[in-house]
Amino acid sequence: MSNTGQNPAAPGDSGPSMAFVTPQIAHFDEPLTLACGRQLAAYDLVFETYGELNQDKSNAVLICHALSGNHHAAGYYTADDKKPGWWDECIGPGKPVDTNKFFVLSLNNLGGCHGSTGPSSVNPDTGKPWGPDFPVLRARDWVHSQARLADKLGIECWAAVIGGSLGGMQALRWSLEYPERVKHCVTIASAMKLSAQNIAFNEIARQAILADPGYADGHYQENNSVPHKGLGLARMVGHITYLSDDAMAKKFGRDLATGTLETGSDDNVEFQVESYLRHQGRQFSESFDANTYILMTRALDYFDLAREYSHDPVAAFRHASCSYLVLSFSTDWRFPPARSREIVDALIAAGRPVSYAEIEADEGHDAFLLPIPRYQNVFIAYMQRVGAEL
Amino acid sequence: MSNTGQNPAAPGDSGPSMAFVTPQIAHFDEPLTLACGRQLAAYDLVFETYGELNQDKSNAVLICHALSGNHHAAGYYTADDKKPGWWDECIGPGKPVDTNKFFVLSLNNLGGCHGSTGPSSVNPDTGKPWGPDFPVLRARDWVHSQARLADKLGIECWAAVIGGSLGGMQALRWSLEYPERVKHCVTIASAMKLSAQNIAFNEIARQAILADPGYADGHYQENNSVPHKGLGLARMVGHITYLSDDAMAKKFGRDLATGTLETGSDDNVEFQVESYLRHQGRQFSESFDANTYILMTRALDYFDLAREYSHDPVAAFRHASCSYLVLSFSTDWRFPPARSREIVDALIAAGRPVSYAEIEADEGHDAFLLPIPRYQNVFIAYMQRVGAEL
Repeated sequence: MSNTGQNPAAPGDSGPSMAFVTPQIAHFDEPLTLACGRQLAAYDLVFETYGELNQDKSNAVLICHALSGNHHAAGYYTADDKKPGWWDECIGPGKPVDTNKFFVLSLNNLGGCHGSTGPSSVNPDTGKPWGPDFPVLRARDWVHSQARLADKLGIECWAAVIGGSLGGMQALRWSLEYPERVKHCVTIASAMKLSAQNIAFNEIARQAILADPGYADGHYQENNSVPHKGLGLARMVGHITYLSDDAMAKKFGRDLATGTLETGSDDNVEFQVESYLRHQGRQFSESFDANTYILMTRALDYFDLAREYSHDPVAAFRHASCSYLVLSFSTDWRFPPARSREIVDALIAAGRPVSYAEIEADEGHDAFLLPIPRYQNVFIAYMQRVGAEL
Repeated sequence: MSNTGQNPAAPGDSGPSMAFVTPQIAHFDEPLTLACGRQLAAYDLVFETYGELNQDKSNAVLICHALSGNHHAAGYYTADDKKPGWWDECIGPGKPVDTNKFFVLSLNNLGGCHGSTGPSSVNPDTGKPWGPDFPVLRARDWVHSQARLADKLGIECWAAVIGGSLGGMQALRWSLEYPERVKHCVTIASAMKLSAQNIAFNEIARQAILADPGYADGHYQENNSVPHKGLGLARMVGHITYLSDDAMAKKFGRDLATGTLETGSDDNVEFQVESYLRHQGRQFSESFDANTYILMTRALDYFDLAREYSHDPVAAFRHASCSYLVLSFSTDWRFPPARSREIVDALIAAGRPVSYAEIEADEGHDAFLLPIPRYQNVFIAYMQRVGAEL
């Protein structure tokens, strides 16, 4: 299950790099009963691994991706790749999730659009794409499907389950659903549940997609259309909430892309921030599936760690048996530090070992993807402890 | 120019009320040269007045409306009205803008959609609605058109020019464009210019409208269509930014309108905050003009108080000669207190008299429309000073 590619020099990256990575597909034939009550008769999960699984299979780390993530978390596929995986800053030799020490598994969530079974896959019952009829998923469904993938690889217990944002929620859910299979849980820039404001932003994203005639009630594949504008708008909304007010001010200010703000001009004024957001929206709409976006935002909205524990997170965490690292970022207003402190308070009250750091960072929610020294240092220190226990 | 209606008991309002109000229309035939360089050959402004103009015409107060406001700021049209004007909390007998003392004028801005000439008016050159071809407007254009209305009413100098949000920007611009015509400037929950994040939210609103096929490139009137969904989405985006995270949490939490979040259910889950926002969006899209919304958000984005003063607000305010009241609200993240403090700092450096209060309020930007005791007290105290100078 390890990588067999050559050891390249990473393009445009000064840090040490990994072998080229190759995605793999795991097929599952045993039906999976989902939280909504429906069953998936069979499904695929696409995944990548980095590093070598040790003999007693004790060094496996699971990476859970966020809303728009995928299985390609680190490394390069070919020497021509312009960019590595989405979390290459944190996964690799000598990086926080050190591939010299750990066997790292990163997969595309069920319901995704990058190779795992999801709305754009064919529904075997109809011979047509699932589209909007794909079952509604919860974070726990991802956890269960990931547990089966672990079974397939012979991994009985993860050295760590790690995720940021929605990925952090999955990591928390792992620690409750399979307490005996998780030694450490790392949850970054996350929360135990979404606020009304979070849900409201997700709702705007969904409404923008639904309102696009190209969405065709979700049957756009059969319709040969793509809801580019709706999906682009959804991404624009998301993007604003990933950045802090200050980060946007520093990055764009009131700079203009075209036109002039001098009076006497009837130019077509465009601010840099506008063209940037439109570009981001366009790019995203060309690479992401609209039904998957709706499904993922719904899973975010529905996540509520303690719902089935009488809404008591302390009672919830009493079911866990792992240690926790919780990280937050000072300017993250999507999942602000207060949400992480709620996790920490509940863990302490439940008697779980927990390390917490609030990282000073200007970059808002996006900070969890960036190489911020203090963030990396705290993350490295914790993962060294995880590694020392192997 | 005063109201002549009966003095009714205000429906559903415990406070003292005004006579029924009646909108009036002022027609202007002299061409107005706009900041963009184009001219409007003729235009109408619809307005209302509350209270009596005194003999020396020294007690006139101008109310400037915000993004989606109109001329109906206070009072009722008939006994059947369910709601009074949008700022009835602050305008009326014994209220901060006391109609027993002041003659209050409130108008629909040029470019608006409630009776003043705007994109939905007929372009005399083509005989068709202006639509997207209506000239781009700046706050200063509103100020100049309002000055002409003042001329028509014989008002040489306003006792006060008052506005919240975009209306506060107009009030600030008044104090620079016509220093000799403004005694007091009251700017509430406002800013000297928009941040990149503000612009980004406005851009999403515009893109949502533009993406709606019902928008028909702005010619929806001729096309007999209405961009309901786009305009609704625009309003939803705005609405989130008007409320604080806390206010949304208190108002909606994670309460459900339909469905259940228990697992084992494939229900159609809808959060209260979702149905609320959709309702707000739908209502707004039935009463507001899409081209006006685009025009107003552009005017917001383009406003930059000090641009023509070498980007130095102190230099800008040296041109003013009035006194200022600046108010902000603690949880307003659209125009946070820091933006108001920038105004205050510049005013102090420019030697202008200024009173400032940051009001503790949970309601975010919307607070400026609400009857918050400390807000009302500060506002009343300042306006009593204005009244004492008459």
